[in-house]
Amino acid sequence: MPDFRIILVSPKHDGNVGAVVRSMGNFGFNELYLVSPCEITEEAYKRAKHAGDILRRAKIVESLDQAIEGCDLIVGTSGIVTAGEKHYVRIPIAPREFAERMKEYDESVAILFGPEDTGLFQEDLMRCDILVNIPSSEEYPILNLSHAATVVMYELFQVRPRRPGGPRPTNGQERERLFLFFDELLDAVDYPDFRRERTKVMFRRMMGRAVPTKWEFHTIMGVLGDAAKKIRRLESKKD
Amino acid sequence: MPDFRIILVSPKHDGNVGAVVRSMGNFGFNELYLVSPCEITEEAYKRAKHAGDILRRAKIVESLDQAIEGCDLIVGTSGIVTAGEKHYVRIPIAPREFAERMKEYDESVAILFGPEDTGLFQEDLMRCDILVNIPSSEEYPILNLSHAATVVMYELFQVRPRRPGGPRPTNGQERERLFLFFDELLDAVDYPDFRRERTKVMFRRMMGRAVPTKWEFHTIMGVLGDAAKKIRRLESKKD
Repeated sequence: MPDFRIILVSPKHDGNVGAVVRSMGNFGFNELYLVSPCEITEEAYKRAKHAGDILRRAKIVESLDQAIEGCDLIVGTSGIVTAGEKHYVRIPIAPREFAERMKEYDESVAILFGPEDTGLFQEDLMRCDILVNIPSSEEYPILNLSHAATVVMYELFQVRPRRPGGPRPTNGQERERLFLFFDELLDAVDYPDFRRERTKVMFRRMMGRAVPTKWEFHTIMGVLGDAAKKIRRLESKKD
Repeated sequence: MPDFRIILVSPKHDGNVGAVVRSMGNFGFNELYLVSPCEITEEAYKRAKHAGDILRRAKIVESLDQAIEGCDLIVGTSGIVTAGEKHYVRIPIAPREFAERMKEYDESVAILFGPEDTGLFQEDLMRCDILVNIPSSEEYPILNLSHAATVVMYELFQVRPRRPGGPRPTNGQERERLFLFFDELLDAVDYPDFRRERTKVMFRRMMGRAVPTKWEFHTIMGVLGDAAKKIRRLESKKD
């Protein structure tokens, strides 16, 4: 993955700047450039919350040239997409596709967001190697600045090399044991033969979609196993 | 795709409410419920921009019960994920996975977002069929309310184009019956009380993720019901 630099070109509301900064913190981005921004007041820091450090370290510059210096790839974002092929400057890719491509990439990448009211100007867009547009409603396609930045950074975060964490899903062997327990329960309730095969497949598919964690797997196996055992025990007493 | 209802539970800043509304407009969502919200002032309409109509039509209610009335599937969102598998209430799926699952689904779905400072409370989370968490930086995982809503709605917007046909999923009423059957099975096997609540929530979540079709639902309910009935019958003979 490349190093990313977030560049806000002439933002007009410092609350928006703060909101973008917070999202940078949420998705692990650090480097912020502000090109001729509005005044950055306490409001921006309030909105940045725990990511205020990123804002304090932000570089304020006067021109886009200064902001993109040292970057290998320039990425623009735009809410306006024209279908005509002549408008080659505005032919975009979606954030997901953009993120996918970044996996292969290893240099320094600048991502530009334009002013809230106009978006990036034609002359800025002309300099971009990639243009990203967020798919959205035809009736109201223009996202808030920090929302647009959030979506783009969220997508990039998805493709980051990740360390493993979170609840562990079951493996194949464990799942097979669960299916065996389910099968035994079908036996215990004298489940009709002609339905059995499809019911087993159904259970397998349903569990496949649910992707149980180890804990869930043990719990559901416990319930099914208890039921089967209890039936067997009661039946043996009956005899 | 289902109909979605966006529910903001006790939002504290009406600017955030407005920002969520704008995003709803951007991603084609219409139905908004506000549970005991802060005062909705001009600031909210300012932030909602061209989506102000959604805010004007929003329903303000006093309890979550009123807000989710008529919804078949309840989806919670949480910024807090505990790694321990024992914290069953907080085992989440990612927004992308959630969106993928919604493709199969056709009923009415409520998506809950909690207050800015605390998020959804445990008692609200307990009611959710699915819990969604947005993958984010470990150092600063808590997103701004409207950013979180934006990511979830953005992901749902990606899967909008509908697949024709396919098996129909269950509705909320049917699922409640399934949970009742599961509950009765727990009774029948004398399932220990101290584990019961979490096992019930686990089953609900697992089914939420599996999105069973009507046929699957009837089949699994049949197996669970048969087991419970057989145990009861054998027990009554024993006496």
